[in-house]
Amino acid sequence: MIAVIKQGVPETQIDNLVNWLETQSVSVHRSQGVYNTVLGLVGDTTHVDIELLQNLEIVETVTRISEPFKSANRKFHPKDTVVDVSGVKVGGGHFAMIAGPCSVESREQIIEIAKQVKQSGATLLRGGAFKPRTSPYDFQGLAADGLELLKEAKKETGMPIVTEIMNANHLPLFEDVDLIQVGARNMQNFELLKELGRIRKPILLKRGLANTMKEWLMSAEYIMAGGNEQIILCERGIRTYETYTRNTLDLSAVPMLHELTHLPVMVDPSHASGINWMVKPMAMAAAAAGADGLMIEVHNDPKHALCDGAQSLTPEQFDDVAKRVKHIREAI
Amino acid sequence: MIAVIKQGVPETQIDNLVNWLETQSVSVHRSQGVYNTVLGLVGDTTHVDIELLQNLEIVETVTRISEPFKSANRKFHPKDTVVDVSGVKVGGGHFAMIAGPCSVESREQIIEIAKQVKQSGATLLRGGAFKPRTSPYDFQGLAADGLELLKEAKKETGMPIVTEIMNANHLPLFEDVDLIQVGARNMQNFELLKELGRIRKPILLKRGLANTMKEWLMSAEYIMAGGNEQIILCERGIRTYETYTRNTLDLSAVPMLHELTHLPVMVDPSHASGINWMVKPMAMAAAAAGADGLMIEVHNDPKHALCDGAQSLTPEQFDDVAKRVKHIREAI
Amino acid sequence: MIAVIKQGVPETQIDNLVNWLETQSVSVHRSQGVYNTVLGLVGDTTHVDIELLQNLEIVETVTRISEPFKSANRKFHPKDTVVDVSGVKVGGGHFAMIAGPCSVESREQIIEIAKQVKQSGATLLRGGAFKPRTSPYDFQGLAADGLELLKEAKKETGMPIVTEIMNANHLPLFEDVDLIQVGARNMQNFELLKELGRIRKPILLKRGLANTMKEWLMSAEYIMAGGNEQIILCERGIRTYETYTRNTLDLSAVPMLHELTHLPVMVDPSHASGINWMVKPMAMAAAAAGADGLMIEVHNDPKHALCDGAQSLTPEQFDDVAKRVKHIREAI
Amino acid sequence: MIAVIKQGVPETQIDNLVNWLETQSVSVHRSQGVYNTVLGLVGDTTHVDIELLQNLEIVETVTRISEPFKSANRKFHPKDTVVDVSGVKVGGGHFAMIAGPCSVESREQIIEIAKQVKQSGATLLRGGAFKPRTSPYDFQGLAADGLELLKEAKKETGMPIVTEIMNANHLPLFEDVDLIQVGARNMQNFELLKELGRIRKPILLKRGLANTMKEWLMSAEYIMAGGNEQIILCERGIRTYETYTRNTLDLSAVPMLHELTHLPVMVDPSHASGINWMVKPMAMAAAAAGADGLMIEVHNDPKHALCDGAQSLTPEQFDDVAKRVKHIREAI
Repeated sequence: MIAVIKQGVPETQIDNLVNWLETQSVSVHRSQGVYNTVLGLVGDTTHVDIELLQNLEIVETVTRISEPFKSANRKFHPKDTVVDVSGVKVGGGHFAMIAGPCSVESREQIIEIAKQVKQSGATLLRGGAFKPRTSPYDFQGLAADGLELLKEAKKETGMPIVTEIMNANHLPLFEDVDLIQVGARNMQNFELLKELGRIRKPILLKRGLANTMKEWLMSAEYIMAGGNEQIILCERGIRTYETYTRNTLDLSAVPMLHELTHLPVMVDPSHASGINWMVKPMAMAAAAAGADGLMIEVHNDPKHALCDGAQSLTPEQFDDVAKRVKHIREAI
Repeated sequence: MIAVIKQGVPETQIDNLVNWLETQSVSVHRSQGVYNTVLGLVGDTTHVDIELLQNLEIVETVTRISEPFKSANRKFHPKDTVVDVSGVKVGGGHFAMIAGPCSVESREQIIEIAKQVKQSGATLLRGGAFKPRTSPYDFQGLAADGLELLKEAKKETGMPIVTEIMNANHLPLFEDVDLIQVGARNMQNFELLKELGRIRKPILLKRGLANTMKEWLMSAEYIMAGGNEQIILCERGIRTYETYTRNTLDLSAVPMLHELTHLPVMVDPSHASGINWMVKPMAMAAAAAGADGLMIEVHNDPKHALCDGAQSLTPEQFDDVAKRVKHIREAI
Repeated sequence: MIAVIKQGVPETQIDNLVNWLETQSVSVHRSQGVYNTVLGLVGDTTHVDIELLQNLEIVETVTRISEPFKSANRKFHPKDTVVDVSGVKVGGGHFAMIAGPCSVESREQIIEIAKQVKQSGATLLRGGAFKPRTSPYDFQGLAADGLELLKEAKKETGMPIVTEIMNANHLPLFEDVDLIQVGARNMQNFELLKELGRIRKPILLKRGLANTMKEWLMSAEYIMAGGNEQIILCERGIRTYETYTRNTLDLSAVPMLHELTHLPVMVDPSHASGINWMVKPMAMAAAAAGADGLMIEVHNDPKHALCDGAQSLTPEQFDDVAKRVKHIREAI
Repeated sequence: MIAVIKQGVPETQIDNLVNWLETQSVSVHRSQGVYNTVLGLVGDTTHVDIELLQNLEIVETVTRISEPFKSANRKFHPKDTVVDVSGVKVGGGHFAMIAGPCSVESREQIIEIAKQVKQSGATLLRGGAFKPRTSPYDFQGLAADGLELLKEAKKETGMPIVTEIMNANHLPLFEDVDLIQVGARNMQNFELLKELGRIRKPILLKRGLANTMKEWLMSAEYIMAGGNEQIILCERGIRTYETYTRNTLDLSAVPMLHELTHLPVMVDPSHASGINWMVKPMAMAAAAAGADGLMIEVHNDPKHALCDGAQSLTPEQFDDVAKRVKHIREAI
């Protein structure tokens, strides 16, 4: 971290600042220019509050050279993290295919879909039980009952299950869930993140609707700071002014995150566009960009799905997508 | 709600759709054009899931004519809601001035600031005890201890207190808090909103960093759906690509929300820009735009504040801002 | 186009509106609901000014069902347009690879790079002569001299050339340019677009920094309205709040535009991220998404390039990217 | 400007960089830290291409301490610029009120409106003759005929006139125009800006739809670099994801620009929201924020205006707004 001191600041004030910084376990190297004094902060600067520093009247500007995240940082952990989801590996060359309906609706539905996507190569089964909806009047999911049905599908097919948590108080219900998803709207629900840091289960952390990659990694850092380092990041589109697509899938996040962090990076092409026929090309593009896996909505009756039907694939369409993605992965 | 059916859809499919819609307590008026069939949905359409409808294969487009929010909608409640915060009225012509430090730091600090801002005309005292921070390594507030100090300042000065909640499990600690704040990052923490709908205390609901006014009102609707109708909305700046200011204060939200809803609308000019000297002009502009109140950060020692010091005013600066705002309010 | 009339509007006013609309070569089908009157506009509605219509006091809402673009619309021209750039076909299955330096710097530089990229499979040579720069003090390109050097490289290698125009008055200088590029900042320079509609040379139209696909297609429509239908669209990243990448490459634009328009869609992965090592994965992802071509910056000495060096590839890196893209294209 | 060199870079490479920088009329102060070498660039750094510098392989990061704009920079010209528009002063305490129709439609229309707005206190008359429209099929203005009608209204009322230019080739037609407007979509039409730098007429430079204040000031700098320093900036709303308002008026730009530049800053509340009844509160807010003037659309028959009718005020409404703004200005 480099802090440039304003011109004309008295020596004693700079000394005070240096002393204060050194109490925070960094050492400070001072270099005097003709116009400005520049302080170089050396050591573990993740604990230095950059906003606070910038706010000081005597400071002109502060530049972070190292990233504010540490546990998630590839610089300190060069080797790819491989997350183990009840036997299914994700990351470090292991490609995961999560598939299933937006919402769990019935026993028949979830088991039928589970069987079909498994046959097409899906390795993990998704299904929403607790659904975050913008309107309090929209369908909110089957809740605990939905979780039960998911577990039945798991028993029936042997596929590990993935589902979203919205409230840390629900954690006891998630005992048999293999991969716990944090949705976009909860990416900065820091209280939830802290609780998930205390458990020892893999977390699928979706990117917030309007969050930067740095904020996303800081949210991963919240979980990791608690000791839970089994995190998979999942890009699902960000908000822009474009209206033809629901969100703008940011595939450049895949190579950029692979540079910044050792955590696996998946892509959800279904939610990003919100459009059925865009899932295939975007799934292929995600694979080509180097994603460690895909999360795709599949429904056996998309026209009557209780939510997000328009973006769901039929099992036949999913089968085609899975094949194409395989070809792409062989080509790269 | 107007739904346009695609060309060439067989009558029986349209009949099925109409029947299904009529089970949802709306009546459907059907009009046959040369090219398209248009369905007009009449009645309470807040419970019709517009995404679901749009997703149906036979539907070309759906246009909501009435808003998806109902309890918060001015059309159904033309009279301004006046929120009563332990005797301090907000809305319907009653202007509130919330002031205080970003974080509660010590007994002396909070009581000293409380006395000073009260003298300058502040009607409510703010102070953060639980602080949402992007980094797990940054100062997270004094938590329960901070709440205790706030309550002491309330006892000492008689000012009702405002502070942020981040976790519904903390509600018992908020017994003596007069106005509970939901921060930007929790605006779509639906589980928290539902819990706040069950209590009978006024809520200050801040706008999310990248949320539309419709989503904001839907979040208010979540609280109101639970029976708690004492809500104050607070604009605090949205995320844009501008970098000179931290966020872009959207003052057009003030007149627009006054049109859409009967709830009071306040403005926080401190967080929006993140810059001390911008608070005054933006506070004046907010008052001129018709805001029902302001929320301003004041610190007796901004240079050493533990967070957000650069945007805090000194008590003297706050006194000046309060006077200017008063002049503006007299002029409108 | 569907226009919903407000409740309680007198018949005569609706009659007036219908008459006025019918003077604009659309026929109007009127259907009377219990609450609202709905007007269905049938025929060529591209000439109906939707903003004007929405502004009328008696109109509740207007929904466009057909797109406002016509010449660019796939509905009216289902077959892919194949643009012929002096013998190099683009679109309809023909994949174009444009490569070359950001700026033409010298005779040696441009000829050397041209030879190298040709060997690696590039089909068109790019090189900036007129450079749009945010600052008036930055290098603005070699102008007419740069164009001359480009032409020499064309003579030497036989590759058709692509370069950006910033001023319609420069058109005489572009006589020997094979594909004229309109940069992001001029996407809505309507006066320039009109002039380009009058010539008969292929145009490479880049997406504006913060423009929607609809606006982009309307800009293509400006050129096509003048009679020039040889247009290639080029996605180059849009502005978001993300800061790790310079812009956010919107690859979902590729399949979406293929649905909306018959024009070829290329992708520029160099400008989008601004980072050398992101070009390869994003080029592969663009190919997987179905792009009709790529535009890639190559420099034989990226470290000393006069502009945008950090995003340029070396000829060796370009050779690798070209090979990978070929593999991806074979896989899809 | 502070450039931090990467760790482990050999001395000779740093020497080369220092030598190269010193050829660009800056002096370089070098300070050696434990980990990094920091170069402080002193002198006029506006000509240093920061992108180029950042792109060098040996450079870790570059931070601009001084702004990249110079002529527009308040640091070098602390006194407010007062622009003289044919006798009407703008800036430095002089408040301008520009009013008139979106488009000039007829002799009667423009003269009638001119008389009415003059009576209400407008000091400058606006009216569009060349209209930038997203669609080539929408009304594009009366062009040269519109300019003639504007001039007649000027003769009749004595009010200086303001109108938009879209093409530098039209400049001869603008001989009698008193203030030439550059619209949002041409803010980065650098060729047009350069031409406007060569004339000696005041320019009203609107902010681009998605441009930062820094880019906006760099565009002013383009004009000033040519020797034309009579520039008025005009905020007109930026693009966000909000949909209730057409654009988001960024009033924080007013105090921020007053800090950054000596140029006057006006606000256009009509285009920002696109809604008639929002003009009044936003005009008042702009005045309270310290704007140097307002630009307001007025039409004597808004319902039949050829463009943007919904955002125009009637002359009576304008009279009311002008009075309110006067009260606000007296209060601040």
